Amino acid sequence: MGSQIFLSELFGTAMLIVLGCGVVANVALAKTKGNNGGFLMVNFGWGLGVFAGVYVAFASGAHLNPAVTLGLLASGGDLFPGNTDLGLDPVPGTVGNAVLYIVAQLVGAFIGAVICWLAYKKHFDAEPDPAAKLGVFSTGPAIRSYGWNVVTEVIATFVLVFVVILFGRTPSGLGPLAVALLVVGIGASLGGPTGYAINPARDLGPRIAHAVLPIKGKGSSDWSYSWVPVVGPIIGGVVAGLVATAMQGALGL
Amino acid sequence: MGSQIFLSELFGTAMLIVLGCGVVANVALAKTKGNNGGFLMVNFGWGLGVFAGVYVAFASGAHLNPAVTLGLLASGGDLFPGNTDLGLDPVPGTVGNAVLYIVAQLVGAFIGAVICWLAYKKHFDAEPDPAAKLGVFSTGPAIRSYGWNVVTEVIATFVLVFVVILFGRTPSGLGPLAVALLVVGIGASLGGPTGYAINPARDLGPRIAHAVLPIKGKGSSDWSYSWVPVVGPIIGGVVAGLVATAMQGALGL
Amino acid sequence: MGSQIFLSELFGTAMLIVLGCGVVANVALAKTKGNNGGFLMVNFGWGLGVFAGVYVAFASGAHLNPAVTLGLLASGGDLFPGNTDLGLDPVPGTVGNAVLYIVAQLVGAFIGAVICWLAYKKHFDAEPDPAAKLGVFSTGPAIRSYGWNVVTEVIATFVLVFVVILFGRTPSGLGPLAVALLVVGIGASLGGPTGYAINPARDLGPRIAHAVLPIKGKGSSDWSYSWVPVVGPIIGGVVAGLVATAMQGALGL
Amino acid sequence: MGSQIFLSELFGTAMLIVLGCGVVANVALAKTKGNNGGFLMVNFGWGLGVFAGVYVAFASGAHLNPAVTLGLLASGGDLFPGNTDLGLDPVPGTVGNAVLYIVAQLVGAFIGAVICWLAYKKHFDAEPDPAAKLGVFSTGPAIRSYGWNVVTEVIATFVLVFVVILFGRTPSGLGPLAVALLVVGIGASLGGPTGYAINPARDLGPRIAHAVLPIKGKGSSDWSYSWVPVVGPIIGGVVAGLVATAMQGALGL
Repeated sequence: MGSQIFLSELFGTAMLIVLGCGVVANVALAKTKGNNGGFLMVNFGWGLGVFAGVYVAFASGAHLNPAVTLGLLASGGDLFPGNTDLGLDPVPGTVGNAVLYIVAQLVGAFIGAVICWLAYKKHFDAEPDPAAKLGVFSTGPAIRSYGWNVVTEVIATFVLVFVVILFGRTPSGLGPLAVALLVVGIGASLGGPTGYAINPARDLGPRIAHAVLPIKGKGSSDWSYSWVPVVGPIIGGVVAGLVATAMQGALGL
Repeated sequence: MGSQIFLSELFGTAMLIVLGCGVVANVALAKTKGNNGGFLMVNFGWGLGVFAGVYVAFASGAHLNPAVTLGLLASGGDLFPGNTDLGLDPVPGTVGNAVLYIVAQLVGAFIGAVICWLAYKKHFDAEPDPAAKLGVFSTGPAIRSYGWNVVTEVIATFVLVFVVILFGRTPSGLGPLAVALLVVGIGASLGGPTGYAINPARDLGPRIAHAVLPIKGKGSSDWSYSWVPVVGPIIGGVVAGLVATAMQGALGL
Repeated sequence: MGSQIFLSELFGTAMLIVLGCGVVANVALAKTKGNNGGFLMVNFGWGLGVFAGVYVAFASGAHLNPAVTLGLLASGGDLFPGNTDLGLDPVPGTVGNAVLYIVAQLVGAFIGAVICWLAYKKHFDAEPDPAAKLGVFSTGPAIRSYGWNVVTEVIATFVLVFVVILFGRTPSGLGPLAVALLVVGIGASLGGPTGYAINPARDLGPRIAHAVLPIKGKGSSDWSYSWVPVVGPIIGGVVAGLVATAMQGALGL
Repeated sequence: MGSQIFLSELFGTAMLIVLGCGVVANVALAKTKGNNGGFLMVNFGWGLGVFAGVYVAFASGAHLNPAVTLGLLASGGDLFPGNTDLGLDPVPGTVGNAVLYIVAQLVGAFIGAVICWLAYKKHFDAEPDPAAKLGVFSTGPAIRSYGWNVVTEVIATFVLVFVVILFGRTPSGLGPLAVALLVVGIGASLGGPTGYAINPARDLGPRIAHAVLPIKGKGSSDWSYSWVPVVGPIIGGVVAGLVATAMQGALGL
């Protein structure tokens, strides 16, 4: 079961990051066809990256995000309910399993960022601004203020994890589209101050890739900010898991 | 049952307003990443705010809007058909229940506006224009003309409530996406003159928040306009409930 | 059954036109909030107008468009398969029934255009350009060339009716969203030369409304072009019905 | 069975290309209504072109793309599982069947490009830039670098074929919308460097049409680049088929 989870989360998170970092590269780097394509295009790119990643990570429940994993752990249930049709067992909510998910997500995010860099190699070379290059890999604040930046990431990640936990209460035929649209909405609505990491792996994995890859003319990896998109989403995800459990208890469900 | 309705509508409407006011903040306030992102992005932000809010308010039927509550009351049926799978009872269409829904919606909208302000705190501080700040919280007319502004809100809210009532006649697997898309469409098509409140709680709750919050450099809360996005949507919602009932009666359904 | 079809198509087409003409008003008229919102926003507005209209016209199969009615007539099947759950009978494909559908669509489109004008009344008053006002009601060519304009309308309407007829072969849970998205796509892809009427009622009903309404500072209703968005869509719809029947026959279905 | 596959893929690919090339014409050619509509509109146009094409090609499984056909062939399964309800037999994964699919796709793409040219005839005549005309038919690189252009096409097509193969593992009610959204996402995220052919027929068929049609003021068909959007997608599709098979084997599915 361990390798099943590991491969599934790794592949799925890599897929998410290829498409997610890809849309930023398309909008931000020099001479691309989608240059200056607008923030809504970025929102759709990330949302549809989640869409594709969820299909890829079907064998582990497609967390793709340590904040989701930790939110589910905090909510007290299984990390993955399993899938009888495919013969996949449930994954109990243990710390060991959560660590396995998170490590796979970080490795997958790193790999995805490398692939994105390869896809846009000539545009990284042609882009003169080091900040634009880092922006493809990792988030940064519109106005730097660590405390308020954490607040924004907490709120945005709470929305993500809280609603994802409630999806099961309102069955629909949307499948992975539901979470994809939720991510489009969070980006459009709450992405303005910090660029909506809402996922520690999404930010840290590519930041490490930025630091180690031989990117032409790259600048700082901005490690001084790097804790914000890790700590904020973890707080938001855990609080969402606790509140969701409390709310469902209050409703007697 | 009262606390179930109250909490469900409060949480759901807060979610709607966090995302709905959030997208306006992203487009309108200084230095955000989505600055000048366009009206279609605003439409998607509000539509997906409804999408998220409906999942959150599953235990009360997710009105999130006094115009919907009053429209359903006028149409003569239950306010919520209940949910056998979750053990949730139907909510009969009484004035007392309607008041409970509406108070919860107003409180939720107020709380959502406070959270949105926190998420964009530094951008409210950086924004010099008081009108842009109020615009994040509440709607205002493009051309001030109370009578015609009411007409626009009546028409737009009629569309919302009338179509929502008819959703059940054409089953699909869309779930909450159907109303989300409807709100995207109403915004794009009928949001031009007044910014489409189409929901008294959506406008009044945040306007009260604007009045009481210590927002840096804020101006007037424009109370002289505040009755329009309350009265217009109530008229539109009630008329929609009555017309839907009449139409279905004429069809013998 | 006649009044059921008539009311259903009338209400549904009015809904389509309120939202469809509305989005053009929002993008094109002076001082609106969606001014210059872009062509993609127009495409979504029309597509979601179809979405809403289809829910409204559930009792007649939601043609909303004489080209669809005539395409179904040409394909040789029922105009509406009926709905056992709601106790709605099938509507046989007769000329009389087709006329009933089409008259209702024209009346509905006229009423929808009047409501759109009321919703945007102050913006019609504020708009100096008569062509922008007519453009809210009816289509016009980007480059006037009647023959080629007809060709474009034939192709775009063929796509609409042909794919709508085939929807039943690939069941999904999308319901009215399928045709809505198809209309978004046709607008984005084939709307460039003529503004994609693809529906005689959509163009003629509002054009009559433009001619008779007391619109401040209105210009010509451009009757010399008015036959193009009637004749082109009829040809495209009928050819689509015939080709779909032939294709399905060739496949032995 | 041969003519069933041939007609189905031909009609479906023609539909894809009419809408796909159409949206580029709308954005790129002179005097259209969607001029400068933005890259996201192009992404939606292509995605919804796939949406329509998949409905049309229901009788062959709607590959519409040699990279999909070859990826399925490489994965070792049937090219089409058949459809019991419609009496359609499965199509075994043989080289002969694959050739039949691919030839039909190329012919369909050629025909689709001709129809698109007819729909935009007057705008091709009005457009002074030969490169804009070719861009409606075929892709070209933002920065010409054959090796890196191939890399981008390999990655983007891998994403397409890999996720399409996995769709069946996560059932939803989305039907053709799933692949349509995937194509929107690939375009937004990975379309920046090469304009995302991700389909040899999509590029080569229209390029041949560009070469033979009497387009006013056309320039070179850029045959020196033409192998990139053929070879890259084939590599990406085949690798995706092999990796998907290996991954599912590793999971014991």
